[in-house]
Amino acid sequence: MSHPDADVYPIATGPAAETVAKHQDPQDLVFYCAWFCPYAARTWLALEEKGIPYQYKEENPFHKDKEFLEINPKGLVPAIKYKERALYESLVLCEFLEDAYPNTPPLLPADPLDRAYARLWIDYIVKSVIPPFQRLVQMQEPDKQRAALEDTIKAMRTIAEKVKGPWFMGEQFSLVDIVLVPWVIRDHVVAEYRGYSREAVGSGWKEYAERLANRESVVKTQSLEEHNMKIYRRYLRNEAQSELAKAIRAGKTFT
Amino acid sequence: MSHPDADVYPIATGPAAETVAKHQDPQDLVFYCAWFCPYAARTWLALEEKGIPYQYKEENPFHKDKEFLEINPKGLVPAIKYKERALYESLVLCEFLEDAYPNTPPLLPADPLDRAYARLWIDYIVKSVIPPFQRLVQMQEPDKQRAALEDTIKAMRTIAEKVKGPWFMGEQFSLVDIVLVPWVIRDHVVAEYRGYSREAVGSGWKEYAERLANRESVVKTQSLEEHNMKIYRRYLRNEAQSELAKAIRAGKTFT
Ligand SMILES: N[C@@H](CCC(=O)N[C@@H](CS)C(=O)NCC(=O)O)C(=O)O
Ligand SMILES: N[C@@H](CCC(=O)N[C@@H](CS)C(=O)NCC(=O)O)C(=O)O
Repeated sequence: MSHPDADVYPIATGPAAETVAKHQDPQDLVFYCAWFCPYAARTWLALEEKGIPYQYKEENPFHKDKEFLEINPKGLVPAIKYKERALYESLVLCEFLEDAYPNTPPLLPADPLDRAYARLWIDYIVKSVIPPFQRLVQMQEPDKQRAALEDTIKAMRTIAEKVKGPWFMGEQFSLVDIVLVPWVIRDHVVAEYRGYSREAVGSGWKEYAERLANRESVVKTQSLEEHNMKIYRRYLRNEAQSELAKAIRAGKTFT
Repeated sequence: MSHPDADVYPIATGPAAETVAKHQDPQDLVFYCAWFCPYAARTWLALEEKGIPYQYKEENPFHKDKEFLEINPKGLVPAIKYKERALYESLVLCEFLEDAYPNTPPLLPADPLDRAYARLWIDYIVKSVIPPFQRLVQMQEPDKQRAALEDTIKAMRTIAEKVKGPWFMGEQFSLVDIVLVPWVIRDHVVAEYRGYSREAVGSGWKEYAERLANRESVVKTQSLEEHNMKIYRRYLRNEAQSELAKAIRAGKTFT
């Protein structure tokens, strides 16, 4: 039986396709990604920002291929293989890239207090920005949508007020920006169908969101919107059956 | 109006009281802890394991003191103040101690792959061991208790099978052990009231649990069981009103 969400466009398109094409040769680091996945995007952006050599492998995580389940028993992208060892969980992978490639552009500040501050706000995005955003997409009842919209905007405003500019931590583009941007560039979905607007967040959010969307690594890893919208339509009807969709439907968080 | 959970024994007792007494002098690092808190215990254990000088301040997180809310707007322990800056979230604090005190015993492996592996299993404990454990404590309906017991034991077994021994990562006592141990030493609650047993987990879990419970830092930070049980009785009747209790009651995870 095939997974009900498995019917996604099979490969990256648009600018992302060019980036994928440049990363086909075998490398020490094999990156298992799905072109549409906002979690995999974190790791992909970190790889691109740091200029780490990687071999891109498109993995449809809904197929639950036996071979892939040996890499990530949870069956989720992103995952990597490095020196015959497998790792997964997007945030663990981002921290791994920081540790394993010290001579590449850092994505966390060097100062321990600043590093902790960055991790604190990553934690906030993971726990307080993404879950209401996802509820906003999936919930069908107007009152639940209203509550989710309010929570989303409030959490985004909390972030907006902390942006030192141009990036969250100031001059340094960091993992805080990376963890956030995959949802920021998908916000047209809730703008079109759920009454969200960047303006409603205020506190410079719109300008920050635009800077994020125009970041080279972000542009280079984006596929054509039409293929994304096909996936999102299932979420907007609350029909998607991904682990994320099921958790949100059950009132849980998924991080 | 005082918080319904605020009536806890006000200070650490037993071995923990002695440890607290030794950490009253002003230090660069001020540690805001509640003697009973399994999250604060992570940071406390890290401080003790690393031998970092710290000033212990008992904070009843249910009082939501204005002064404390300025340190952690979420009003949760643990938190720290260091060089006039405030930080919170137990895992962020543990990573901070690793970064800020490089000349103390490390709690993460030096090798990037091993570090990532440790963080991966910390993530697993946080997402897959603690939530079912907490559901097991709070749920009242027999079928929900049964499901929670099964999930708890299964997740613990997954960990047990990965323990290299004597500690999770092998010879090095690490953050993986630290994140787990506060729940392991509270398992007598579910053993007495919910039909759990360490033996039922198998795969050497009982022996690992005993090693954890006897670790010096763990013993030194424990208060008298009677004061803990007073708190747990509210959880066992699903009456507690902490953020954790409310989240679990609502079917959410809380990490
Ligand atoms: N916590 C994971 C989440 C990854 C995740 O949910 N990825 C999705 C694609 S966006 C997936 O693999 N879904 C397959 C499924 O849900 O069965 C991470 O941060 O890496
Ligand atoms: N995610 C937090 C959780 C901390 C937490 O929930 N602490 C509890 C005490 S065990 C607390 O402060 N509760 C106060 C409340 O729930 O209002 C962490 O890891 O530090």
